[in-house]
Amino acid sequence: MNLINGVIGDTICVTDRGLAYGDGVFRTLTMRGAQPVLWRRQYAKLAADCKALRLPCPAAILLERDMAEISTHEPDCVIKIIITRGSGPRGYAIPGTVSAQRIVASAPLPDYPRNYYEVGVQARICDTRLALQPMLAGIKHLNRLEHVLARSEWSDAGIAEGLMLDASNNMICGTMSNLFAVKANELMTPDLAQCGVAGVMRDLTLELARTHGIRADISHLSKSDVLGADELFVLNSVIGVWQIVALDGRTWRKGLMTARVRSWLSNAQK
Amino acid sequence: MNLINGVIGDTICVTDRGLAYGDGVFRTLTMRGAQPVLWRRQYAKLAADCKALRLPCPAAILLERDMAEISTHEPDCVIKIIITRGSGPRGYAIPGTVSAQRIVASAPLPDYPRNYYEVGVQARICDTRLALQPMLAGIKHLNRLEHVLARSEWSDAGIAEGLMLDASNNMICGTMSNLFAVKANELMTPDLAQCGVAGVMRDLTLELARTHGIRADISHLSKSDVLGADELFVLNSVIGVWQIVALDGRTWRKGLMTARVRSWLSNAQK
Repeated sequence: MNLINGVIGDTICVTDRGLAYGDGVFRTLTMRGAQPVLWRRQYAKLAADCKALRLPCPAAILLERDMAEISTHEPDCVIKIIITRGSGPRGYAIPGTVSAQRIVASAPLPDYPRNYYEVGVQARICDTRLALQPMLAGIKHLNRLEHVLARSEWSDAGIAEGLMLDASNNMICGTMSNLFAVKANELMTPDLAQCGVAGVMRDLTLELARTHGIRADISHLSKSDVLGADELFVLNSVIGVWQIVALDGRTWRKGLMTARVRSWLSNAQK
Repeated sequence: MNLINGVIGDTICVTDRGLAYGDGVFRTLTMRGAQPVLWRRQYAKLAADCKALRLPCPAAILLERDMAEISTHEPDCVIKIIITRGSGPRGYAIPGTVSAQRIVASAPLPDYPRNYYEVGVQARICDTRLALQPMLAGIKHLNRLEHVLARSEWSDAGIAEGLMLDASNNMICGTMSNLFAVKANELMTPDLAQCGVAGVMRDLTLELARTHGIRADISHLSKSDVLGADELFVLNSVIGVWQIVALDGRTWRKGLMTARVRSWLSNAQK
């Protein structure tokens, strides 16, 4: 089910700048029991991303109404919110009057194999590098061709995620997830000042770790830092937490810290 | 007038990957006297860009039919062609079966001031830098937020174009155009191996210069190379050729080489 500016529909205008230039932002979250999970954080991030692109962000109440309408049909689903800068005359210049478009779409909750959670997942390191663009780093905008290219590098269903390096050899993220490494009972997650998407679950994990007295740092991580980690996990709002137990020839046993993080996040989302 | 897969319409599906990820390519060209200008070159570039993204390119005949239909209503117009990877399930993975979407849209020919051609234009140097991404460099894809940000830096109608540097301080292009510098009766245009869009008019200019015995090189150009040029011009299929006569405090007189290039291109487009 899709709501476009609050009205059921399946289409947007071909002159929309979201299509023409990727001029917009998005969020993906879950709805469970008719409640959008971590909604306050999701909206805060959406508003921050809009602000970064000087894009008018719809009021929270409008998005909440859209999600409430969807929830009457699908109380448990994935919600994708897209905000575009709407249509305008030909050319890159932002129109004097912007009519931002608001798309709220539902999709079924994915059904990942249980062993992704009980055992862990196999990942790979992608050849596609993330370019360094500090003006867009961290923002969940609609220019996502690098992620499409990275995800197209493998078709083996046994590989659950691909990790991406940036042009300076820093490990940054998964194609659809944020990355954490555990070393000596401390958490580290890549610095996203130059590229990558700063997800809501990443921020929440950093906060929860500190609340629980676990040091959690944003830092530069090389490929060897990652391969030398005691534990490694990826997360996002839809997949939750997947421990990586096989990567680039290395394997890991099930880790205690990953289980703790999953438990913290699970409690925080109740 | 918009044709979507050959049918008159104004909308595309909200689940289209062109919107979700900018997963597609585009071309902008002119139609004059019901003829798409430099069509063979435009189609060759479209097909090459599709191939670079492993996107199925529609047969030329389909696009030609679309443009012929538009030309019966608007024999003189701007044509924008967008090819997207179509809709698919949630996620970056390219669907097993891709149904590429073909959008052919017309817009009125712009009416630029006559003095842009007779005298020249004022340009500026943008703060927004182009990130280095060799996997996407040269391709006219739908991830164009950098250009949107660069074009949003000024609103002074007296400035016709903004020039963009890359992250390594190379001068690359205008926000909507390719750039040429003239030095000692030779042409130079920036190397686009790391970023930028390689336009049809750029290629044609390089070819025509050589045909006329003028040396024309692809090279690295710094800001001072550009400011030290004898002449400077930007071009694309819609604007034609604009000589830059004021940039960053420097001014230039009307140049002979720019006039020659304009004349060659004008003849080649007949």
